[in-house]
Amino acid sequence: MTKYCITINDVNYPVKIIKNLYHKINIFKQLISTKQIIIITNKTIKTFYLKTIKNIFKNTVIKIDSIIIPDGEKYKNLSIINNIITKLLKKKYTKNITLLALGGGVIGDITGFVASIYKRGVQFIQVPTTLLSQVDSSIGGKVGVNHILGKNMIGTFYKPTSVIINLDFLKTLPKRELYSGFAEVIKYSIILDKAFFNWLENNINLLLQLNKEAIEYCVYKCCKLKLKIVSIDEKEKKSLRTLLNFGHTFGHAIETYMCYGTWLHGEAISVGIAIATKISELKKQITSKEANRIITLLKQAHLPIKGPFEMKPNHYITYMINDKKNINNKINLILPISIGKSIIYQNIDIKTITLAISYLK
Amino acid sequence: MTKYCITINDVNYPVKIIKNLYHKINIFKQLISTKQIIIITNKTIKTFYLKTIKNIFKNTVIKIDSIIIPDGEKYKNLSIINNIITKLLKKKYTKNITLLALGGGVIGDITGFVASIYKRGVQFIQVPTTLLSQVDSSIGGKVGVNHILGKNMIGTFYKPTSVIINLDFLKTLPKRELYSGFAEVIKYSIILDKAFFNWLENNINLLLQLNKEAIEYCVYKCCKLKLKIVSIDEKEKKSLRTLLNFGHTFGHAIETYMCYGTWLHGEAISVGIAIATKISELKKQITSKEANRIITLLKQAHLPIKGPFEMKPNHYITYMINDKKNINNKINLILPISIGKSIIYQNIDIKTITLAISYLK
Ligand SMILES: NC(=O)c1ccc[n+]([C@@H]2O[C@H](COP(=O)([O-])OP(=O)(O)OC[C@H]3O[C@@H](n4cnc5c(N)ncnc54)[C@H](O)[C@@H]3O)[C@@H](O)[C@H]2O)c1
Ligand SMILES: NC(=O)c1ccc[n+]([C@@H]2O[C@H](COP(=O)([O-])OP(=O)(O)OC[C@H]3O[C@@H](n4cnc5c(N)ncnc54)[C@H](O)[C@@H]3O)[C@@H](O)[C@H]2O)c1
Ligand SMILES: [Zn+2]
Ligand SMILES: [Zn+2]
Repeated sequence: MTKYCITINDVNYPVKIIKNLYHKINIFKQLISTKQIIIITNKTIKTFYLKTIKNIFKNTVIKIDSIIIPDGEKYKNLSIINNIITKLLKKKYTKNITLLALGGGVIGDITGFVASIYKRGVQFIQVPTTLLSQVDSSIGGKVGVNHILGKNMIGTFYKPTSVIINLDFLKTLPKRELYSGFAEVIKYSIILDKAFFNWLENNINLLLQLNKEAIEYCVYKCCKLKLKIVSIDEKEKKSLRTLLNFGHTFGHAIETYMCYGTWLHGEAISVGIAIATKISELKKQITSKEANRIITLLKQAHLPIKGPFEMKPNHYITYMINDKKNINNKINLILPISIGKSIIYQNIDIKTITLAISYLK
Repeated sequence: MTKYCITINDVNYPVKIIKNLYHKINIFKQLISTKQIIIITNKTIKTFYLKTIKNIFKNTVIKIDSIIIPDGEKYKNLSIINNIITKLLKKKYTKNITLLALGGGVIGDITGFVASIYKRGVQFIQVPTTLLSQVDSSIGGKVGVNHILGKNMIGTFYKPTSVIINLDFLKTLPKRELYSGFAEVIKYSIILDKAFFNWLENNINLLLQLNKEAIEYCVYKCCKLKLKIVSIDEKEKKSLRTLLNFGHTFGHAIETYMCYGTWLHGEAISVGIAIATKISELKKQITSKEANRIITLLKQAHLPIKGPFEMKPNHYITYMINDKKNINNKINLILPISIGKSIIYQNIDIKTITLAISYLK
């Protein structure tokens, strides 16, 4: 692990983790093979970083344009996709362009989806600016948008040309967004890596303070874990990649029920992790001691373990039946059987789910 | 070539050409691996064939549902995609479904695009009912929709599970639609196969009368030609598949200018073929004798060689600049250099294009 630039090449696109963007100009230049870049970002991120990114390409032959969309998960829908495509077509952009996603998971998912369907596919680069997008959404090629009837229901698998992770972006990230990112970090450790979970328990305070070494190791570790899974099971055809949806069945139910606004993705996932852990405990798959360690770590990261007050167990059940993971209307859930190990539990009974949700109320 | 069922396996999905659907029930049953089929078709085709298809699955464990959309190229847009997805989500369909496209190119392109983005991809089967879709659009995995600013500007590459071509469908096809299909047939012969062009010249009248042997050979030949190209250059990364766009640069300009209504796709392509042939003649790439043979064959198939009266040369040029084939705003065109042979002519001058269009006015 070099000090300033880590390149991971486990899939067929590079994932580069850097610090201090301003000295890494060549990284961008090397990775882009078209003469036209269109940065897609939102109003919030624009004020912080748009000029910086544009400046990188000053004095080069590469032309830069940008499309600014409103900020928020509730704009991650088919109508914003149409708006962006209309803008691209109005400027007569050919297939020979690179879309650059500058933002969190929302911007990344939207930009990638546009890239996958604009003139049947153009290049795109992920430049994730949130912890959540740096450790999770920018990697793995899942792109898409929400539908009022369900989270991420419209999308494709589409690979970025490269992923450039600048850790310095995290300095301006609101604390609540930072915590949200740790939900996915904790997720990886529970389903895949006990040693990493132990490390997180010991370093959570350093991480929350954005300690340089701790954050660098944490992001690197998560990228490695995700890339390993994705390189084996890119399109979620085997059950391996499905494990990454741990906590997401309940999480997506919350996000959809709350109309993609008030709850952050990571917060919803945190509750989902808590519920799934409780179910596992009730089903005697995981020990109470380990279940408690999971709940404690979530709390230490300032993450919620109870869902929205107004959501009753049957609200979760209704949404769960429409989950992408289900085959033939049976509810399957990813459950941790011990810290670092998880399984897909088939055809789970509604009573246990209800019980677990009530416990955490 | 067996008498009743031809299977072509040049790509990794079977293309089956059959006659008399009613006796080939097992073909469908064998090819579908999900327990739920959703037929997507339009109001016109519904009255002719929906019951027939539904009956095939009577007394099987496979459940059938259908979504009926309005008839017409002008409905091939993102808004219909959203409508179909909403219907699928309302019925809580999981990823474990097969969409069955029952119709012409419009239904096939729409259904395939929905299949490619619904929950990140479900299976789909093409059951093309027009000559154009049987010889061209159902094969090759290009799916998508139009945008007011351009034809097929939104889409993906997504393979069907199989293509089932029932020649009997052609009996109810309006004559004008039949002629439209021959534009793509003639296209193949000009760019790829001189012997086939000669055969078409000799058999065009039999074909227009839907003579069984002639139509069977014609569809088989076109499928073979397209499959060969697609198997070598699936995603149009080499220039080979680009050749299939012969005539389409001008054709798409006409369709877009006319707002996807009055002109049929094949009619627009026929004019495009005529203009490109004229340009080739002006550029001394093809002999006048061969150029005339091309124009004559188009006319014999009752196809137009002049564009809409109201379209001036500069209307074509404007649209052409936004064409998917262009790289860096230079207009590239596919030109026949002799019957059976074509090239991508780079950076063509606007004067010659204007001249050719004026010639055909
Ligand atoms: N594609 C995948 O594999 C995948 C995986 C996990 C999550 N996701 C998706 O990711 C989305 C959540 O992503 P997110 O948590 O990054 O949310 P987000 O994209 O909404 O970003 C969070 C907020 O932080 C702001 N912001 C971003 N970077 C900033 C910075 N550096 N400084 C200051 N403010 C900044 C944004 O404007 C936004 O208001 C969800 O839609 C989720 O479904 C996708
Ligand atoms: N994906 C590709 O590779 C590809 C290739 C070529 C064309 N296309 C697309 O295909 C579309 C044109 O397809 P098309 O020419 O089949 O038009 P279409 O789908 O509009 O069908 C033509 C008309 O015939 C009717 N019809 C269809 N089958 C019938 C039958 N058996 N009996 C009676 N009526 C019938 C339809 O309802 C419609 O009114 C265009 O949108 C074009 O862009 C796509
Ligand atoms: Zn997530
Ligand atoms: Zn065509």
